[in-house]
Amino acid sequence: MPTKKFLLEEKDIPRQWYNLAADLPTPMHPPLCPDGSPLKPEMLERVFPGNIIEQEVSRSRWIDIPEEILEILTLWRPAPLRRALRLEKYLKTPARIYYKDESVSPAGSHKPNTAVAQAWYNKKFGIKRLTTETGAGQWGSALAFACNLIGLKCRVYMVRISFDQKPMRKTMMQTWGAECLASPSPHTHAGRAILKEMPHTPGSLGIAISEAVEDALSDKSGKSRYTLGSVLNHVLLHQTIIGLEAKKQLKIAREKNPDVVIGCVGGGSNFAGIAFPFICDKIHGEKIEIIPVEPTACPSLTKGPFTYDFGDVAGLTPLLPMYTLGHRFVPEPIHAGGLRYHGMAPLVSHAAAQGLIKPQAYDQLKCYESALLWARTEGTIPAPETSHAIACAIDEAKKAKQEGKQKVILFCYSGHGLMDLSGYDKFLSGKLTKYALPKNKLRQSLKAIKNLPRIK
Amino acid sequence: MPTKKFLLEEKDIPRQWYNLAADLPTPMHPPLCPDGSPLKPEMLERVFPGNIIEQEVSRSRWIDIPEEILEILTLWRPAPLRRALRLEKYLKTPARIYYKDESVSPAGSHKPNTAVAQAWYNKKFGIKRLTTETGAGQWGSALAFACNLIGLKCRVYMVRISFDQKPMRKTMMQTWGAECLASPSPHTHAGRAILKEMPHTPGSLGIAISEAVEDALSDKSGKSRYTLGSVLNHVLLHQTIIGLEAKKQLKIAREKNPDVVIGCVGGGSNFAGIAFPFICDKIHGEKIEIIPVEPTACPSLTKGPFTYDFGDVAGLTPLLPMYTLGHRFVPEPIHAGGLRYHGMAPLVSHAAAQGLIKPQAYDQLKCYESALLWARTEGTIPAPETSHAIACAIDEAKKAKQEGKQKVILFCYSGHGLMDLSGYDKFLSGKLTKYALPKNKLRQSLKAIKNLPRIK
Repeated sequence: MPTKKFLLEEKDIPRQWYNLAADLPTPMHPPLCPDGSPLKPEMLERVFPGNIIEQEVSRSRWIDIPEEILEILTLWRPAPLRRALRLEKYLKTPARIYYKDESVSPAGSHKPNTAVAQAWYNKKFGIKRLTTETGAGQWGSALAFACNLIGLKCRVYMVRISFDQKPMRKTMMQTWGAECLASPSPHTHAGRAILKEMPHTPGSLGIAISEAVEDALSDKSGKSRYTLGSVLNHVLLHQTIIGLEAKKQLKIAREKNPDVVIGCVGGGSNFAGIAFPFICDKIHGEKIEIIPVEPTACPSLTKGPFTYDFGDVAGLTPLLPMYTLGHRFVPEPIHAGGLRYHGMAPLVSHAAAQGLIKPQAYDQLKCYESALLWARTEGTIPAPETSHAIACAIDEAKKAKQEGKQKVILFCYSGHGLMDLSGYDKFLSGKLTKYALPKNKLRQSLKAIKNLPRIK
Repeated sequence: MPTKKFLLEEKDIPRQWYNLAADLPTPMHPPLCPDGSPLKPEMLERVFPGNIIEQEVSRSRWIDIPEEILEILTLWRPAPLRRALRLEKYLKTPARIYYKDESVSPAGSHKPNTAVAQAWYNKKFGIKRLTTETGAGQWGSALAFACNLIGLKCRVYMVRISFDQKPMRKTMMQTWGAECLASPSPHTHAGRAILKEMPHTPGSLGIAISEAVEDALSDKSGKSRYTLGSVLNHVLLHQTIIGLEAKKQLKIAREKNPDVVIGCVGGGSNFAGIAFPFICDKIHGEKIEIIPVEPTACPSLTKGPFTYDFGDVAGLTPLLPMYTLGHRFVPEPIHAGGLRYHGMAPLVSHAAAQGLIKPQAYDQLKCYESALLWARTEGTIPAPETSHAIACAIDEAKKAKQEGKQKVILFCYSGHGLMDLSGYDKFLSGKLTKYALPKNKLRQSLKAIKNLPRIK
């Protein structure tokens, strides 16, 4: 009986995060103010604590993980590396398919890796309360979980339509002691203004971000801050523990580095987590194919330009160098809510611009087909986001079969789908559509950013 | 940083199940026909395959686990043994609290341990299709999962009210390729008769059992059989892998046998799984307190007589020697649906009658309070059933503190609560009640069994 799980002991958990910014062949483009002038770190101080801002701009290759953060991460970490033997057998592929299982966290995804770290740094800095927004609820749940264990208050603005469609996500957050409000809410100027104008709006991530930022800024005690679950450098940094653990576990499995590394991408954090330590090896000469997989309904890396854009719809954030569909872009309502983001993390975008990674886009029908094959061979039900990585891993395994090569494929199983079964229900009853990006929609959306600064 | 997880390698998974029947100080009382005559194994052959019946009546102490079953179990097994360090710290207890985490299975509970085994034995026997009933959905999901991996058709009759309240359980079963029907259904005589009489009935486990048994019996090919998720000897046998693994892992944690072993009980299978290997030690002289925890709303072990009763409401099954509230007993609608069974597994009942275990009953409010404390210290959200074991473990840890004793407490974390968050929602919004058993309700219910044979 060949081994299916490669486990690390707690004592072997990585003690440092890896910062890709230290190894990039050309330096990152700096974030800018809306007028094109350079953004100074201190401008962010009302939104983020100083220690997080320091991490955001750091160029150190290795950053120590504080012991108290590790203490909490070991509630579920090291996460297992597993081999998908039953899927391999079904595909009759000579490839060996490994997946890093981030679904084992209490919130069910990779998100707590950074939620715990962000909550800890805020607490350390004297902050008492965090605000954030959430779409499908994965990030809000993770931050609620982390704030509870660290001892911070937490308020989550959840996009109204998800709030109504997924009431159990709210219950999850409340179980961990957080407040979860439907956005737009009557608690902020931004929310009230929108409610007055459009009382029946389903809400959007852009509105929820505006509310969460305003909420943090308007706390007169100065003890509230805002948090983000993806996109920013420090968020991606905290996720690199995924790939660093996977490297150690591949050694236990007696494998060298993988031939192919795959992760789904929305904002970019789980992909960065699995991929960045391997991009480091690639920069240093190793031959590894690294594939971020995005939905055809929201194809920032494969269809968008690499340019400066806002992180939010309302244009409240600094300008970030990103592959972007334009900050006004509203993706079709695919079930992979975590991948419905108009832009791509600057670090991931930079790696793409340098040719270090090879983005691909998959449509949601193909992804659900792959998720079903996965559930029926490997036995677990993946999150709709994760199914994008699975679909690509299956294609790579088929390619290895055609080529007759014993490739090693590694992907990030970023979360389970137990809170997202309604998408499976629609797929099984034939009610799902593919969703691709109509050309005129992209053209229209890019108009909103045509007067913003360009990357030189 | 002290270790929180004690992992076994796949090669160290137990290779045999443990059969408590071999070690009981007095032999089990035999199952009977309704008229009191002894039941012959061959009478069961239209319902169960011969190899399962053999296991049901076996008195061998150790039964080999076939390699092909192990191959599937290792998709998630060995399951981790974890130490609840953060809960210990919160309680300021000198006790060390360990829990065997059965929530890691793809279906989210201990149920797949026997579902896989039952599906395999049926397949081996030439059976093509399995039927079963499910209440809250845990067992139906587990059997759907197992039948898919083994290659059997599967039909689940799900109690109508659960079917409507928990549509995601149906989707889960369909994802694994099973059919899930609301019971009563128009597919069986039993179902049609009930629908005619009571078109709007919410259904019951008793009706669903009748439908599933009739369905298996009426397949003219003779290739359908019925399966049960708890109560019977072979089901409990398959669960003993839980306690056998835990024993090995306690050694890795450098602990001797625990002082206290705890499991929640409905039909008895997860309790048997964690407890039977330790009951063996107790029979051979070790001092271990072993506690099955049941809900006050369905207190078969603590309030019922030990007598012969039917396993189902309709009286279709053989008579089993059980602690029972009477087969007509309908428990209050507590959220721990898996514990809403009128009787108790004959093996567990026998152990209780012999004084080998010390049953306790907890009300649902206390259980949800404990579940919330658990979620806020250990970080995971337990199933409502599991919260009964947690509540008792917390009480035992407090007792150890009062006594100033460094006790080792072990309990079975039988499943996660991610599919049952509606109960948390009601608890958090103050809408849950305690539910105890009104005396006249028990008296009334026991009337139905007063003319059945007694245990001599």
